Order: sequence, then structure tokens, then C-alpha cells
Amino acid sequence: MSSIKMFEKPLGMRDTFPNIYEKLEQIRTSGREILRARGYEFIKTPSVEYYDTVGKASAISDARLFKLVDSQGNTLVLRPDMTTPIARVATSKLLKEKIPQRLAYFANVFRAQQREGGRPAEFDQMGIELIGDATVYADAEVIMTAIDLIKAYNIEDFKVTIGHAGVLSCILKDYTESEDQAQQLNELLVKRNYVGFEEAVLAFDLPKTKSDALLAYIDEAISLPSIEVIEKYVGKNDALEYMRNLARILDAAGYEPYTAFDFTLSSHMSYYTGMLFEVFASGSGFPLGNGGRYDGLLKHYGSKVGATGFGLRVDRVFEAMPKIEIENNEVLVLFSAERFAEALAQATVLREQGNLVTFQAYEGIEDVAALKAQFKVINEFKSREA
Amino acid sequence: MSSIKMFEKPLGMRDTFPNIYEKLEQIRTSGREILRARGYEFIKTPSVEYYDTVGKASAISDARLFKLVDSQGNTLVLRPDMTTPIARVATSKLLKEKIPQRLAYFANVFRAQQREGGRPAEFDQMGIELIGDATVYADAEVIMTAIDLIKAYNIEDFKVTIGHAGVLSCILKDYTESEDQAQQLNELLVKRNYVGFEEAVLAFDLPKTKSDALLAYIDEAISLPSIEVIEKYVGKNDALEYMRNLARILDAAGYEPYTAFDFTLSSHMSYYTGMLFEVFASGSGFPLGNGGRYDGLLKHYGSKVGATGFGLRVDRVFEAMPKIEIENNEVLVLFSAERFAEALAQATVLREQGNLVTFQAYEGIEDVAALKAQFKVINEFKSREA
Repeated sequence: MSSIKMFEKPLGMRDTFPNIYEKLEQIRTSGREILRARGYEFIKTPSVEYYDTVGKASAISDARLFKLVDSQGNTLVLRPDMTTPIARVATSKLLKEKIPQRLAYFANVFRAQQREGGRPAEFDQMGIELIGDATVYADAEVIMTAIDLIKAYNIEDFKVTIGHAGVLSCILKDYTESEDQAQQLNELLVKRNYVGFEEAVLAFDLPKTKSDALLAYIDEAISLPSIEVIEKYVGKNDALEYMRNLARILDAAGYEPYTAFDFTLSSHMSYYTGMLFEVFASGSGFPLGNGGRYDGLLKHYGSKVGATGFGLRVDRVFEAMPKIEIENNEVLVLFSAERFAEALAQATVLREQGNLVTFQAYEGIEDVAALKAQFKVINEFKSREA
Repeated sequence: MSSIKMFEKPLGMRDTFPNIYEKLEQIRTSGREILRARGYEFIKTPSVEYYDTVGKASAISDARLFKLVDSQGNTLVLRPDMTTPIARVATSKLLKEKIPQRLAYFANVFRAQQREGGRPAEFDQMGIELIGDATVYADAEVIMTAIDLIKAYNIEDFKVTIGHAGVLSCILKDYTESEDQAQQLNELLVKRNYVGFEEAVLAFDLPKTKSDALLAYIDEAISLPSIEVIEKYVGKNDALEYMRNLARILDAAGYEPYTAFDFTLSSHMSYYTGMLFEVFASGSGFPLGNGGRYDGLLKHYGSKVGATGFGLRVDRVFEAMPKIEIENNEVLVLFSAERFAEALAQATVLREQGNLVTFQAYEGIEDVAALKAQFKVINEFKSREA
């Protein structure tokens, strides 16, 4: 074994130390409270799934899946997201007693990294899936719940950007000359590469009406004065009516200040079919989370019902939150052997009072001063002879 | 894709549904409270580690490791236990400011299963590691903390059985004729197969003094009237003095009723070097958890300090606990589109009062009666025209 590897972790894998752990725990606890108060029920699925069942259906590219092979020769994957496993559970199990289903999760997911530095290969996601309600009220609920969470984390300056996968793909199809062109443009929008988009449009050598329309669309669709503007490009249709309705509901509920519509929004989560959204905090280069409607994914599991949901990246929420310091009442009770029982009784009382009490024999420590320096409150039970 | 696999999970992998999830969450929450009150700090390590770093050092046999290969060709493992990763972290990082280190975890670990049925391939462990204190007080603390946890879970009828890896291996070596015989006997004791032990002793064709001593030892060492009895077999020595001291401390602290000494106790966790113990609940075929001193494991990571700790199997604790029913105030607020804002205001008030409120549009439900049947309290905001 090389000595370097002795303390190393695989690419993108990280340890979480106590100080960070407790802050993440606060995110988890208050998130659970908010989601449960909204009728969501938490479930857990295995970390490892069949590639055929969950890996293929996931929107995560094959190169980013952690794959392994079981003793029967089946290919397994470490779950790359939670939407796909929950779709599996929701359509296959007894959970169907309560439809629409409101399911929540707080779970680690895995995405293989190809090189050192930067992105984590394992991270926590918290999210919900609302399954079996095809109405705009379900989508509104999902967006409002995402906003409630972000607000609860005291992230002041954030925006939920809402688009529509159907409207965008319709535009890209109508104003290009091939499926391939539409897909290229879509991939640029997933990366929010608007400069690249303009260059690609010009390079495609499209009829001028089409290229003009695409360039104008990108300008207008990013920050809309009103959803009606989009009618210029796709005509009146159900999807736009749906989005107007969504806007009205969010407005009525008082969530309008936190939202913006952007009909260029696209996602690498290819299973979204309708409304989709991203949550951005100011100053954060990556979305805190994203969500949307994915009526198609459940068909993969043989169910026709619609579904909508979102997931937040816990690590990014943590980064975007105001820095909090957790105040613990840490007490050190030091004892010499002969005063063990007396010291333990004191430690027990202090614990019952809510203190975090380290109970330590002098003889177990090499450097007493160094340990004492870690505590503000110290109770000593020294040998009476000393 | 075969249609059977569509809803299947890999061997030993399980889903956790809401009702069970919340009960496990209670185990987690109250366990965290108890461990933190005792000065333990929670850490998290990656699910995936290098085989060379953690897989090899673990006491879990190779056949039970989930192995995968990263893009650089390194072999990785899903962590089979938490003691080994924590030993890695503890000896390599900044945590050394507070020595002795008191670290805690609540984490899933992975053990590959070869066939259907029975054992889980992924399960939660909760435990502690006390690193850098070589005294008997550290071992006593670890045992007492395990007992405190089990008592907090209202498991009435349980016993902590305490043995000593050094004493046992000394006996097995002294009274057999080869390393191989000693190892065979040890493996039978790991399985608590006393009948097999007797048969093996007789089959070895040992000198009668040795075989008699081994058979007498097994009889006497399981349920000791006093630790002194063991002196007959190993003479007075430090390990026995240590154990007598441990017994005195547990007695002084009032934990004696929950403990028993058994000098035949052995563990498949081969890294234990000193005191070791298992927690058994009456009626449970498997230990709820186990622990012990493992001064050797840290040497593997280049540190000389002693360490002791334990881990509980959360699934087995759950099974051994009295059945609890969680009472939630689940409320269903149903609304027609025109009364959305009014219904939402009501839902918000109910949530602030601590209720778990499902907020649902009539138009999103196919079977209103079926959904209503799932709730005791229902608030309806029907269309005024109806």
C-alpha cells in the first residue's frame, strides 16, 4: 500500500467534521419540520440500485454513475439522484393508499468525478415529490415549498426562476431545421451559455426569419414583463395558459416577489416535461436546487399519473446561508480515580441540565492543560491527597 | 430490461417507508442527544473509500465487501464499518486538538449478501469511538454509554456481556498444540458454538490436562461468580486485574445489574485487543451491538494511542424496542380553485399550530373519498356555487 493513499479518500469524497456536521444537522432538522408540516412523509431508499431499474432511467450521464457488479453478475449503481428511486417506490408499493402522494427525502447521492478538486462525488439532497396530482396547484405547491425552505434558512437574496420544458422544446424545434440543431441549442441553454447560443444560431445558417426569431426570443424570454410576450413565438396554447395560471396562484399566495419567469430555462434533468424551475441565491454560481414536472418518468415504471417535485443541494444551501455559530454548553468534568463516583454524579446532573459534558479521568490524559484549553467550564475532582 | 427487475432492488437492499422512517428518526434523535450530552462529537465520512485504506483494515471479510473501480483504476469499497474510517480520520486530521477524542456517528454501512432473504446488505449503525485514553475509565465509559442508550430506548431486558480478547487468546494458545487449533476454537466461540467447541477439543487429541482445562474453562468462564476464577487458567496477570478494576468501576457507577463477564466471548471484529463486549436483548438472536478496545487498529494508521468504542445496529434496536405509535396531528385542507387563498391562510395557521397539513385542490384528486379516509381532521373549502 502506498503511504500516500493511507489517509486519502477517493476523488470527490469528503469527511464532515463536528462543527460542520451540526450545522448541516440544523438544516436537516428544520427542513424536515417544514416539509412534514406540509404533509410530506419521509422515505428512504437503498444507496445501491440495479442499473437497469434506476441507473438507466436517471438523467445523470453514464460516465458519472458509480457502477459495481454483484455476485450474480448484475450491474448496480450508487443512486445518482432520488427522483428515480422514489418514482420506483411510488409506483410499486403500498404507498398508493394516499393519493396524491407527498413524499420527502434527505439523502446522499453519488456522481463520479473524473479529476481532483472542486465538485463533490457524494452530496446530500433534500427534496419532495408530489405524485398523482396533474394540476397547476401541485406545481405551485412545490415551488412555494422550495421558497418556504430557502426563507427558513435565512437566505435573504434568492430567486426562483420558472420555465417550461415543453414551450422551450417547441420553440427550438420550430425555429431550427433539424433535431440535432435543436438539441445543440438546448445544451447551450442548460449551461446558460447565451453567447454560445447566439454563435450557434448564426453558424446554423438558418432562414433569416428563424434566426431572428430565435435571437429575439432569447432576449425577451429571459426576463419577461409578462408571459403573453411568448405568444409571439408559439401562439396561444395550453402550456402558456398553464404558466399564466401558475403565476396568478403564486401571486395570490404572496410568493410573486421570489419568482421570475424565464422561458429559456433548460435542465440537464432530461425527464422534466412541463414547468421546471431553479433556485438561485445571489452570489452563488450554481443553483441551490431545482425542480419541475416529470410526467414521463413514472410511465417508465408503468404508471400514468403526473408528478412534480424538487431537490435542494444541502451543501450549497449551507454555503448560501448566513454563517451561524452554534452555542453549546460544553463542560469538562475531570476526576481522579478515587473520586470517580462523586464526579460521575456531578456529570449526570450537568447533563440533565442540558450541558454537553465530557467526563474524563486525569490518568487517561497526557496533556491536561491542552484538553482544559478546549473548554470554558471545567469541574475538577482532584485527588484529596494532592 | 426484464420486467421483473423493474421494481426490484439488489440483494439485501431495502426501502424504508414513512411509518418506520419516523420511528428510526426517533432512535437517531434521542441517541444523538445522549451521545452529545456525554461530550461526543458527530462526524461523517464518505460512503466510498479506497480498498487499500479502509477495506483491508476492516474486520469484514473480503467476500462481503462491495467493491468498485474508479476511473483511475483504483479499487474502492462501500464502507463496511465505521470504526475503520473514523480511525483514518482521527489519526490524520485536525481533530487531534481535543485529546482524548470522543467521536460519534450515525451511518449506513454495507455488507454484500450472497443470497435472498434475511440479512440486510445496508444498515444503520450508531456508535462512538473514544480515542487516546488507554485507561480502564475509557472502557467503562464506553460500556456505560451503550447501556444508557439501550435504557433510553426502553429496552427493559438486556445484558452487556464483557470479555477480554487478550485473556481468551492466551488461554486458547496455552491449552492447544498449534496456532491452527487455537484459531479453530476461536471461530467456534465467535459463533457461540459451545457444542462444536467441545467436539473440536476432543477431536484434537490434546494431552488430557489441556483438554480438561479447556472444557472446564468453557463451563466456568461463561457465567462467572467472580473474575478470580479465571486465575486458575492464566495465573494472576494485568489483564485480569484490569477486568477486576472495570467491574469495580461499573459497580460504583450503578451499572453492575446490566453487565455480566464472560471470558469465552470472542468477536468477528478481529481488531479488538483488550476488553470487548456484546449487548444482547432477551429474545433477540443477534447482538444489538458490540464494542471493545482496539489499540492495534490505530497503529495501522501510524498512531500509537489506544482506542475503545462500540456500535449499535439501529435495525436490531428498533426490533427490540417496545412498539411505539407516533401520534401526528394530520390535517387535510381541501380547496376549490376560487377559494385557494383563503384555504392557504387556514393551512398556514394550522401548520403554525404544529399540525401536519396536507393542502390539496379538489381538482387534483380522482378519488376524494379515499384521500379523506386517510385523515381524522378535514377542513373543506368548497366552491361557493356547490
